[in-house]
Amino acid sequence: MSDINFNSIVISTRIRLARNFKKYPFVLRMSADNAKEIIKNVSDSILNANESFKNDFEFYGVNELKSKGGTLLEKHLISPEMLKEDREHAALISKNEDISIMINEEDHLRIQVIKSGYNLDEAYKTANLIDDLIEENSEYAFTEKYGYTTSCPTNMGTGMRASVMLHLPAICMAGKMNELIATVNRLGIAVRGIYGEGTEAKGHLFQFSNQITLGMSEEEILSKLRNIIEQIARQEVDIRYKLKSDKLTDKIYRSYGILKNSYLISYNEFMDLWSNVLLGCDMDILTVNRNELIGLISKCAPYNLLADSKQNLDAGKRDKLRSEILRQALK
Amino acid sequence: MSDINFNSIVISTRIRLARNFKKYPFVLRMSADNAKEIIKNVSDSILNANESFKNDFEFYGVNELKSKGGTLLEKHLISPEMLKEDREHAALISKNEDISIMINEEDHLRIQVIKSGYNLDEAYKTANLIDDLIEENSEYAFTEKYGYTTSCPTNMGTGMRASVMLHLPAICMAGKMNELIATVNRLGIAVRGIYGEGTEAKGHLFQFSNQITLGMSEEEILSKLRNIIEQIARQEVDIRYKLKSDKLTDKIYRSYGILKNSYLISYNEFMDLWSNVLLGCDMDILTVNRNELIGLISKCAPYNLLADSKQNLDAGKRDKLRSEILRQALK
Repeated sequence: MSDINFNSIVISTRIRLARNFKKYPFVLRMSADNAKEIIKNVSDSILNANESFKNDFEFYGVNELKSKGGTLLEKHLISPEMLKEDREHAALISKNEDISIMINEEDHLRIQVIKSGYNLDEAYKTANLIDDLIEENSEYAFTEKYGYTTSCPTNMGTGMRASVMLHLPAICMAGKMNELIATVNRLGIAVRGIYGEGTEAKGHLFQFSNQITLGMSEEEILSKLRNIIEQIARQEVDIRYKLKSDKLTDKIYRSYGILKNSYLISYNEFMDLWSNVLLGCDMDILTVNRNELIGLISKCAPYNLLADSKQNLDAGKRDKLRSEILRQALK
Repeated sequence: MSDINFNSIVISTRIRLARNFKKYPFVLRMSADNAKEIIKNVSDSILNANESFKNDFEFYGVNELKSKGGTLLEKHLISPEMLKEDREHAALISKNEDISIMINEEDHLRIQVIKSGYNLDEAYKTANLIDDLIEENSEYAFTEKYGYTTSCPTNMGTGMRASVMLHLPAICMAGKMNELIATVNRLGIAVRGIYGEGTEAKGHLFQFSNQITLGMSEEEILSKLRNIIEQIARQEVDIRYKLKSDKLTDKIYRSYGILKNSYLISYNEFMDLWSNVLLGCDMDILTVNRNELIGLISKCAPYNLLADSKQNLDAGKRDKLRSEILRQALK
């Protein structure tokens, strides 16, 4: 079982570091001037760091966030917090969208690195690099005893949240997902649906992340998460193998047929069918361009549809446009 | 409305003539020797008529009917009556399967001509030709008062049953089919499902035929049927136009998607989806090879599947093979 392909279960990997600057009060207590200064300092650190960073990052101020926030949210490049209008926010986002630096979110600084597939080490390395760059110019709030201090105590210590998004259709079909969530919760791992906390799981996609940030080193957190993820992935592969049947193949084929041929499709139905098709692809039941398939999640999400079509669309028209995109992409 | 394309509503046309020979008792009372003689006489009339007929017709005796009867039945080339084992049957079937001459069915002779589309005149002309050929050698039972005498009184007179198979999805979707059946019944027109009397209507396909054969000439019967069929076709086209919507397009597209991509499909589900796709084709909602689509009805029917695969298949395997044929045919 050691030759398992984790990339067929793990859709993406995310590392997020929460940091605050020693010089300023926490976000909820800081002044508007503090907020602006922080935005300037962080932007300078990144954009003046070296020529390639300057070209690679895009700056999103309050206005840009207002107009493009929904799209960025659906791509997991910013958090819902960033769409609130109670303070001056900003974000620096790399062009290939794997790095997002949120300024004045819940903390002064949230560094987020997303990698496709199972890439905890690479994501952590990149986050660390950005972290060091910013620290060169502004000292972080840090104590020997508690590590990085954060606005919410649940992030104290490393300030790190490592999360992986897993595609677990077989565990779900076998009715074992609730049991799994309960088990990993007891081990200090949180489980969320595709759009973060509180949202319902769509497309059998689940984010697993460390709940505990204090009293463990970054390496310990990553190693513990890695162990649990790999166990879950093995369980998923195991059940996939047992579920193999003509009925499952039929379900997967039909899902693909509808995805390729609908004329109206809701995001929820799309996600259900999408999950079946990805399962079919990963079980070698059908042949599709896997990267393209994964890209469809954000392409077909409501805000992105609006952004791409540059029109205001009601739900019915969105469903029509979504079908159009799918027919084009999968033909 | 005079430019309506009847071929988009009428799938096929059938003329059937019932005849008995003066020289022999009716089928139920004839001897085994009578039966054999009749088979020989009819076969001789056709096969010795001219060289082209000889090459064009295939003879099916008792043994051939036993082994291939199911397939011929599904193709409407013989009637269920011909599968009974109570007497010596035979059939002469033209290679392109548009003419079928059943010997010792309910009557000594049943001449059947099937044409695709709306072709009452052509079908009647061909049936007449065969009729005349056979009559040259053996005198029919005929009286001045009652016309051709037949085993069952409902066929007396012309002995002609003219029927057309109509595809009426819109009338069905609008919930108007029962009303239509009641109306045409009152006008002396019988309505049956795709596989003859008593079978449930599959794929929104209905056979309309004259109930009355006595007291009217062949031309009067055809003209009356023609009038009614054309009214029904106009109603169907009218409702199709009114039903046009994104929802209907979606239904048609999805039906096509499933038909092209299933891995297991029952005949009933196939017929439902098939009907939607044909509707889509005839409403210019999607592009498919219409002849190929119509050919799928018999290709996908249970007996034909068995015949083509040359294996004994249970329902599950038939459903799998049917999907395979559909994926091949529609790709």
